[in-house]
Amino acid sequence: MSTDFHQKSVSLLSEQLAEKGIDIQELLSKISAFQIAVPSWALGAGGTRFGRFSIGGEPRNLEEKLDDIGLLARLTKKTDAVSLHIPWDIPQDAQAIRQKAAELGISFDAMNSNTFQDYGQSLSYKMGSLSNANAAIRQQAVEHNIQVIEIGKSLGSKGLTVWLADGSNFPGQAHFRKALQWTEESLKSIYSKMPDDWKLLLEYKPYEPNFYHTVIPDWGTSSFLCRQLGGRAKVLVDLGHHLPNTNIEQIVATLMHQGMLAGFHFNDSKFGDDDLSTGSIKPYQLFLIFCELVGGAEENAQAWESISWMIDASHNTKDPIEDLIQALESIAQAYAKALLVDRAKLAQCQVEGDVVGAQEILQDAFLTDVRALVREARVRSGGEDDPLAFYRKEKIREKLIAKRGKNSQASGL
Amino acid sequence: MSTDFHQKSVSLLSEQLAEKGIDIQELLSKISAFQIAVPSWALGAGGTRFGRFSIGGEPRNLEEKLDDIGLLARLTKKTDAVSLHIPWDIPQDAQAIRQKAAELGISFDAMNSNTFQDYGQSLSYKMGSLSNANAAIRQQAVEHNIQVIEIGKSLGSKGLTVWLADGSNFPGQAHFRKALQWTEESLKSIYSKMPDDWKLLLEYKPYEPNFYHTVIPDWGTSSFLCRQLGGRAKVLVDLGHHLPNTNIEQIVATLMHQGMLAGFHFNDSKFGDDDLSTGSIKPYQLFLIFCELVGGAEENAQAWESISWMIDASHNTKDPIEDLIQALESIAQAYAKALLVDRAKLAQCQVEGDVVGAQEILQDAFLTDVRALVREARVRSGGEDDPLAFYRKEKIREKLIAKRGKNSQASGL
Amino acid sequence: MSTDFHQKSVSLLSEQLAEKGIDIQELLSKISAFQIAVPSWALGAGGTRFGRFSIGGEPRNLEEKLDDIGLLARLTKKTDAVSLHIPWDIPQDAQAIRQKAAELGISFDAMNSNTFQDYGQSLSYKMGSLSNANAAIRQQAVEHNIQVIEIGKSLGSKGLTVWLADGSNFPGQAHFRKALQWTEESLKSIYSKMPDDWKLLLEYKPYEPNFYHTVIPDWGTSSFLCRQLGGRAKVLVDLGHHLPNTNIEQIVATLMHQGMLAGFHFNDSKFGDDDLSTGSIKPYQLFLIFCELVGGAEENAQAWESISWMIDASHNTKDPIEDLIQALESIAQAYAKALLVDRAKLAQCQVEGDVVGAQEILQDAFLTDVRALVREARVRSGGEDDPLAFYRKEKIREKLIAKRGKNSQASGL
Amino acid sequence: MSTDFHQKSVSLLSEQLAEKGIDIQELLSKISAFQIAVPSWALGAGGTRFGRFSIGGEPRNLEEKLDDIGLLARLTKKTDAVSLHIPWDIPQDAQAIRQKAAELGISFDAMNSNTFQDYGQSLSYKMGSLSNANAAIRQQAVEHNIQVIEIGKSLGSKGLTVWLADGSNFPGQAHFRKALQWTEESLKSIYSKMPDDWKLLLEYKPYEPNFYHTVIPDWGTSSFLCRQLGGRAKVLVDLGHHLPNTNIEQIVATLMHQGMLAGFHFNDSKFGDDDLSTGSIKPYQLFLIFCELVGGAEENAQAWESISWMIDASHNTKDPIEDLIQALESIAQAYAKALLVDRAKLAQCQVEGDVVGAQEILQDAFLTDVRALVREARVRSGGEDDPLAFYRKEKIREKLIAKRGKNSQASGL
Repeated sequence: MSTDFHQKSVSLLSEQLAEKGIDIQELLSKISAFQIAVPSWALGAGGTRFGRFSIGGEPRNLEEKLDDIGLLARLTKKTDAVSLHIPWDIPQDAQAIRQKAAELGISFDAMNSNTFQDYGQSLSYKMGSLSNANAAIRQQAVEHNIQVIEIGKSLGSKGLTVWLADGSNFPGQAHFRKALQWTEESLKSIYSKMPDDWKLLLEYKPYEPNFYHTVIPDWGTSSFLCRQLGGRAKVLVDLGHHLPNTNIEQIVATLMHQGMLAGFHFNDSKFGDDDLSTGSIKPYQLFLIFCELVGGAEENAQAWESISWMIDASHNTKDPIEDLIQALESIAQAYAKALLVDRAKLAQCQVEGDVVGAQEILQDAFLTDVRALVREARVRSGGEDDPLAFYRKEKIREKLIAKRGKNSQASGL
Repeated sequence: MSTDFHQKSVSLLSEQLAEKGIDIQELLSKISAFQIAVPSWALGAGGTRFGRFSIGGEPRNLEEKLDDIGLLARLTKKTDAVSLHIPWDIPQDAQAIRQKAAELGISFDAMNSNTFQDYGQSLSYKMGSLSNANAAIRQQAVEHNIQVIEIGKSLGSKGLTVWLADGSNFPGQAHFRKALQWTEESLKSIYSKMPDDWKLLLEYKPYEPNFYHTVIPDWGTSSFLCRQLGGRAKVLVDLGHHLPNTNIEQIVATLMHQGMLAGFHFNDSKFGDDDLSTGSIKPYQLFLIFCELVGGAEENAQAWESISWMIDASHNTKDPIEDLIQALESIAQAYAKALLVDRAKLAQCQVEGDVVGAQEILQDAFLTDVRALVREARVRSGGEDDPLAFYRKEKIREKLIAKRGKNSQASGL
Repeated sequence: MSTDFHQKSVSLLSEQLAEKGIDIQELLSKISAFQIAVPSWALGAGGTRFGRFSIGGEPRNLEEKLDDIGLLARLTKKTDAVSLHIPWDIPQDAQAIRQKAAELGISFDAMNSNTFQDYGQSLSYKMGSLSNANAAIRQQAVEHNIQVIEIGKSLGSKGLTVWLADGSNFPGQAHFRKALQWTEESLKSIYSKMPDDWKLLLEYKPYEPNFYHTVIPDWGTSSFLCRQLGGRAKVLVDLGHHLPNTNIEQIVATLMHQGMLAGFHFNDSKFGDDDLSTGSIKPYQLFLIFCELVGGAEENAQAWESISWMIDASHNTKDPIEDLIQALESIAQAYAKALLVDRAKLAQCQVEGDVVGAQEILQDAFLTDVRALVREARVRSGGEDDPLAFYRKEKIREKLIAKRGKNSQASGL
Repeated sequence: MSTDFHQKSVSLLSEQLAEKGIDIQELLSKISAFQIAVPSWALGAGGTRFGRFSIGGEPRNLEEKLDDIGLLARLTKKTDAVSLHIPWDIPQDAQAIRQKAAELGISFDAMNSNTFQDYGQSLSYKMGSLSNANAAIRQQAVEHNIQVIEIGKSLGSKGLTVWLADGSNFPGQAHFRKALQWTEESLKSIYSKMPDDWKLLLEYKPYEPNFYHTVIPDWGTSSFLCRQLGGRAKVLVDLGHHLPNTNIEQIVATLMHQGMLAGFHFNDSKFGDDDLSTGSIKPYQLFLIFCELVGGAEENAQAWESISWMIDASHNTKDPIEDLIQALESIAQAYAKALLVDRAKLAQCQVEGDVVGAQEILQDAFLTDVRALVREARVRSGGEDDPLAFYRKEKIREKLIAKRGKNSQASGL
């Protein structure tokens, strides 16, 4: 869009929103303030069990990953933090890494542990980790998590995300109740080692990599475990971790109602944990989720600041940096649209049973073209007019390939 | 099967089980003791929103419903209780009904309330009942439940089953958190009126009759509400009330782990809440559920006696009595097979990570033909050799039609 | 939106589209020309198997149904035809009905037969109709369809829609291959009686009202049958008739590729055949479907004019007329957005493997706020600025209730 | 089971079946004759995108894969063929391999091509192969398939299995109709090079590794393409390649009705293409599929001999050889049970609308414990009493590890 059209669009929107009692300046401030973390494993090409297609120019180490996120931050002004995965990204020199990140305007979001792979540790996680029937393996997995906390402390992180892939592929393989009990005990050991100003973000997922049962398959199990741990353990929602047709926005509301929402892993999906770009498949669902978030925060169910935001997608056929630019833009749009909802009128429709009116109000917000708003907020924050166009015009991927090579491969999946 | 083959089968099984250390007499006792309630609405033809096809000879009142269940009890020796639905089955004379039931060997299982239809009450449930934004409607729904408790008390029932159909068809229609809050408050009012020796069985269901959101969509929400109520509120599992691919046996184990399993509504399904005959579509899943039940009770997660058992199916194309005979038989088979599982060996396989061995143990039990066992238990209890053959030979449906008419219609769905 | 903002929006859009080489006048013409039929059963309250909540003022006969559709046509200028259901809407005097419809600017779209209910015919459809194992029942169902053709001829209709609900609830109940064979034979008998300028629209649906197997469950089976019939038999796509996660837009493309797309039944759904308002749940999917339609027509896969358009939704909690206004608006928006797609650039991205660019192009169209365009087209055609606001301001439902009564009930589901 | 119990079980079954008019000798012959191919990639540990856990002793080359299959054949007498995957298993010396296989009693089933990975070929399949927008890539993929045919000819294979993973991850990425058209053209080129006594087995799959659209997502698309090719192209059914809740047995029947069933890839699944052991999750579904196969062959819809049988599973947590022993046993059981169905009585129930009776007949067959039959057939053919027990007692995996090493890795996924 040309600058001229952009200004005209902002003007017209400003007028229209003013009429609805919405102050565009305040809107722009909120949009600007909203920042989403990027995981360190999202800068390389992803893959499936059937293969992986290299993208070229992938970061070869943690420093280069930070460079890529720094670039993203500079272009989009929508991310200011990285979420590290251990052991993929163990910093050799924590102070140096921390300083480099600070220079790029990047802080350290929640740390991620890994007990779903064998990467040289002494005991195998083939039959599970925190839930393993073997106490020594559970202990090893607990210690790994404690090590991750230690690394995080050295970087200034304030959270530990636990995605427990444990489960079973066949009936009989696992003892459901014991596995749950052992998981509770393991998590308690980890929780007890977590600093007081940290939070534990406990993920759930119904299937994959286990295909009969997963120890923490749903929000109910995750919140049950969190309750056993204490007030700093909360439930992490990954948008792709649900059975077909799940009403995710309702889960978000239910968790906020209990003060149990830790945060998000954003992505999109059509079939399962497809890890597609956020907003690429079900943009209306993303908007509805943000409506719950904005509403829940306004109505003091749970404070906005208490919620963590992160992208968690895979990039099988896209340039990861381009993918992240698209995802950050989609998330910003969904948030901006949710801010447009006339919540007072909506509440009135709900009281009156005006189903048609309620739909009109939500759709009025969703159908509004907020791209000019998001762009205006970005530009005012010092970001690029059009980050994707800039990235392409500047031939950044080509430069990365020239520097890092065609076949560099980032650690991760 | 002829009597001769039956005896040979029992003998051979007896020998084989003895070798495995299983005492067939004890097995027969357990099978005989297991009783499943039948709902009063299951004696007529069911239907879909597209229509209903009459079966003929349907019971015209509560007395005739009891007659049908009495017949079922006599033939199968697998049911000894009826679960009433109010207002479909308000007894005119509670004492007389109670006496009639006693004569038939039938007691009164949990009572069912109905706030999902308009049947002449002053305020409409169109926009919900216990979760309605209108306090007067919530109050009416609470009072209806209290009335159901009163009726139940007069009949000797000890439980109230609440299936809350409340929800919304479109985004925006309902306020998720408020609806949950109002539901909690309404349930608290009901719970407070429940006698001390009663339990509240709280059902969950992801969709239908509402198609965007249901107030209590999953076990997590149901157990959250039960925790707010008190120790006598527990979660009811209806096999058809799950999203595609849900691992139901795991939910059963998770609820037992928390002492939160109220009981079951048995049926089967391929697509949704299809309300097909129990065991007709996924018999292995039914067996796995019983494995969790038997294991959970043996390991003292939750006492067997604390769990309620009921069939809840619809009969669109089958004679309801024949359907119930098939369902009771399938449930008994699943239970009998679960009793055959070598739990000590299974535990060992689980500890050793012997996935193949664990599968062998479960399948050894499942593949065993236990029909002779179930039949032997039934006959020893005074039931029929082959209840279905008896029902047909005696032309009971024809007799019911002669007595009640071709177009009688039982109250219910 | 005020008239002032409307004009500004149209102006700005006009400028922006001109820059992209899109002529807004041509766009408005296309939007205006696009008309969607309304079924005669959509003017009353819908229901589920659990109950039905009356809306009041429902049309009591075919004449009143036409009045409602005439009103819709006048307000929205997006519908000019009605699709009748037999036996629910057998006209007593075809000529009179035809003349009344003509006066309202309403023509007769495809006729719908009903062999899924018993409504007094001599043989029951309980075990199926066109696929029934009993030849006499098949013959009765064939004759019913032929009667529907006759009625349609008298009204000027040019098509017969067959939704075959036949199937089975339990394994073993039906013989899959024979049922398919009998269906083919029955359809051939019907097809042979269809005038040369008619088309047969053959619907598919995976489940409901049968819950184990449906004779025509998917587009593959429907197209197989159509091929046996002849070139005027094509596949009808009802958006709600798919298994979870189905890529419906791909089915639309595949059918157009074969020249086999008969048309649509528009609605929306989250779980199954929920029959929710079109565009209320998955608006992006609706847009993607229209992208295939517009593209397929432009590239001569199948002519736009050869496709039939109809709404088929149920209205359990909304005023049916309001619901239809919303649905027609959503469909018009999806169509308008699809017309904005830069197909030349998209084709280039596809050739170059520019996945990110392709997504940008589609989202650029989808994110554009086209409401002003749809409104402008409507107003130029003589419709209302804001049909829903008009309907409410004029208190039309109240007037209908005053005229027709609070408890009138339209024939239908 | 002891030999004594085995003999008693066979005797009792023999008597019971005789009473039903089933000749046990004929049954045993049919069971013995039924052979299922094993793919060359099934002898190593499988994995997911999250990792892979080594099993130890995996075959290091094609010769060792044949050794493993030879062992399986000897123990189970249920497999006599291997299905090769190219390029994973290009034989260095076709004659030598053919001779080795012959010595082991192994022939060469359908060949499998691979155009879903980059393994050093000049052009990348990242954006697809047979459907690629780039003609040169399509040509390369066609030539690869032709090369696979040539290798197959040298080994005595008679079929080519094409699993086309092509598709797209995001809306807009692919042009649905063009992709289908290009696929058709590519397949025609391949088909034209296929010997006259070969068949082409065309697989379908709804998703994975592509997560928005797959070029051949369902049986309808696969059969459409086969019709364009000619009579020797037929549809391959992989049990895991369906959307949730699909009625697979109906698809089998529909394909047989058209003479379009190429054969099977056996496995089992709870969530998607989980590639679990056949029969481990949904044994009743497997039985129902075999009912259609047996019925379709008996009624001459399609000849039994025209159908290909292969296992296609992954072994993430089981010893692959043990897994295959379990799978072969489950398939044999399902087949044996399907042979017990009283088809004449079933047909009568279907004609009479006796839904209850039809279910009884199917369940009578399914509930029969046929393990003694399958064992008897195996032993008479020269196989082991209990292949799994033998494999463990002989410590075959330990011996393979000793010979091949702990970290050998079989080519495959």
